[in-house]
Amino acid sequence: MTTWIQYQLNGEKSFGQLSGGWIQPHTGTLFENPQAAGQLVKLAEVEILAPCQPQKFLGLWNNFYARATAEGWDIPPEPLYFSKVSSSYLAHGQSIVRPQNYQGSIFFEAELGVVIAKSCYQIREDQAEEYIFGYTCVNDVTAKEILQRDPSFPQWTRAKGFNSFGVFGPQIVSGIRSHDLVIQALLDGEVKQQYPVSDMIFKPEQLVALLSQYMTLLPGDVIACGTGLGACAMEHGQTIEVNIDGVGRLINTMQG
Amino acid sequence: MTTWIQYQLNGEKSFGQLSGGWIQPHTGTLFENPQAAGQLVKLAEVEILAPCQPQKFLGLWNNFYARATAEGWDIPPEPLYFSKVSSSYLAHGQSIVRPQNYQGSIFFEAELGVVIAKSCYQIREDQAEEYIFGYTCVNDVTAKEILQRDPSFPQWTRAKGFNSFGVFGPQIVSGIRSHDLVIQALLDGEVKQQYPVSDMIFKPEQLVALLSQYMTLLPGDVIACGTGLGACAMEHGQTIEVNIDGVGRLINTMQG
Repeated sequence: MTTWIQYQLNGEKSFGQLSGGWIQPHTGTLFENPQAAGQLVKLAEVEILAPCQPQKFLGLWNNFYARATAEGWDIPPEPLYFSKVSSSYLAHGQSIVRPQNYQGSIFFEAELGVVIAKSCYQIREDQAEEYIFGYTCVNDVTAKEILQRDPSFPQWTRAKGFNSFGVFGPQIVSGIRSHDLVIQALLDGEVKQQYPVSDMIFKPEQLVALLSQYMTLLPGDVIACGTGLGACAMEHGQTIEVNIDGVGRLINTMQG
Repeated sequence: MTTWIQYQLNGEKSFGQLSGGWIQPHTGTLFENPQAAGQLVKLAEVEILAPCQPQKFLGLWNNFYARATAEGWDIPPEPLYFSKVSSSYLAHGQSIVRPQNYQGSIFFEAELGVVIAKSCYQIREDQAEEYIFGYTCVNDVTAKEILQRDPSFPQWTRAKGFNSFGVFGPQIVSGIRSHDLVIQALLDGEVKQQYPVSDMIFKPEQLVALLSQYMTLLPGDVIACGTGLGACAMEHGQTIEVNIDGVGRLINTMQG
């Protein structure tokens, strides 16, 4: 198990391996032969950045049996997904900001994020593991009332793409299996979501294999696996935490 | 009026200004102080690449009065858009490829593309012109039967995001106004689409200003302004050309 983090220290961006509150800086790039180099850095002294820069941030809809049952949704025969634009990316510790002139509710959605290791196109499910770099926590933030307010066109790109709505991190954990993970959301410390990866309709390896049939997945691309029951609105000043034991705790506050 | 092109020559990627069949190579980057440097290169000798690498490629839906009238669509009170993933980008001269295991129709859509010059967030319409770098031709390719085949979730990201479905180029033309432009699509030389920018519901400057209310637009981002009447299916071996007088001719062939 290896934990990777990107950070800023004295105005310089860097990345490294995190262990016991210390970061071992690395040179090169995260996805191509990173090399340990330089003195250990204390985690408490850095500003944590988003753990990678996805070219694609894909989000699944309707990917949990319990949620589909509760909502009365059919089980989809294939993965249904949208994409989050890169200007929406937000790191651990930063504020989720209410869009100007929008008074509606802003929902958190705690999700498991799969981070792609290397370029893949049309791979099989039994090959997927070698193309998964690791896992991260995702908060797929949504301006709820915008999503369906136009009856002719659901606005997924817009409702999920405001600045600060693509939250992921604080780290990527490599060398683990996802099957036994449990995803939690805590709003001001209160558990609002708690659901297992085992309830996924399309599991991470399946998602990587299926999505790679449609498009080339690239190093650092993130697939957010969809959310379970319990997602709800955040209010100004509240703290939202996505907690996945063995993956991390992604904590942000809501502003506005 | 300046025409910018990205190209590859002897395995090296470069960019420059195009004039009369010759390219003046530049150093630096397209959006930050590009500097002329080196010998002129003959256009006929290079491989044309996509003219920039958008972080966001946004596509408008229902943005022309004539089309809305013909289809019976309401005039939208705000821009309705989706996004195309970066793995779909395709340059002039390359082949649009049918997705594996998809037998349905593949539509071209000729569109005007607006290329963003510099980072902007929440600007006014009267400021938009200075944030527009220039214009390019777009072919917004769509796997038509995938788009609406799931009644619970329209698959815009997937249907418009297959590899080779985000066609734009061959060049970006700066220093022109878009208002009198006419967009044409020619399938094997036959005019299938011909519609003016003046029929747009949201004009380029309005689009830049409005979309910048929702998210930060970045240098090189592309806004495809939506398509008019006449988009239709391409068959194997056919040549599709998006022609905008004063902007360029984007020519590709359909494969499979």
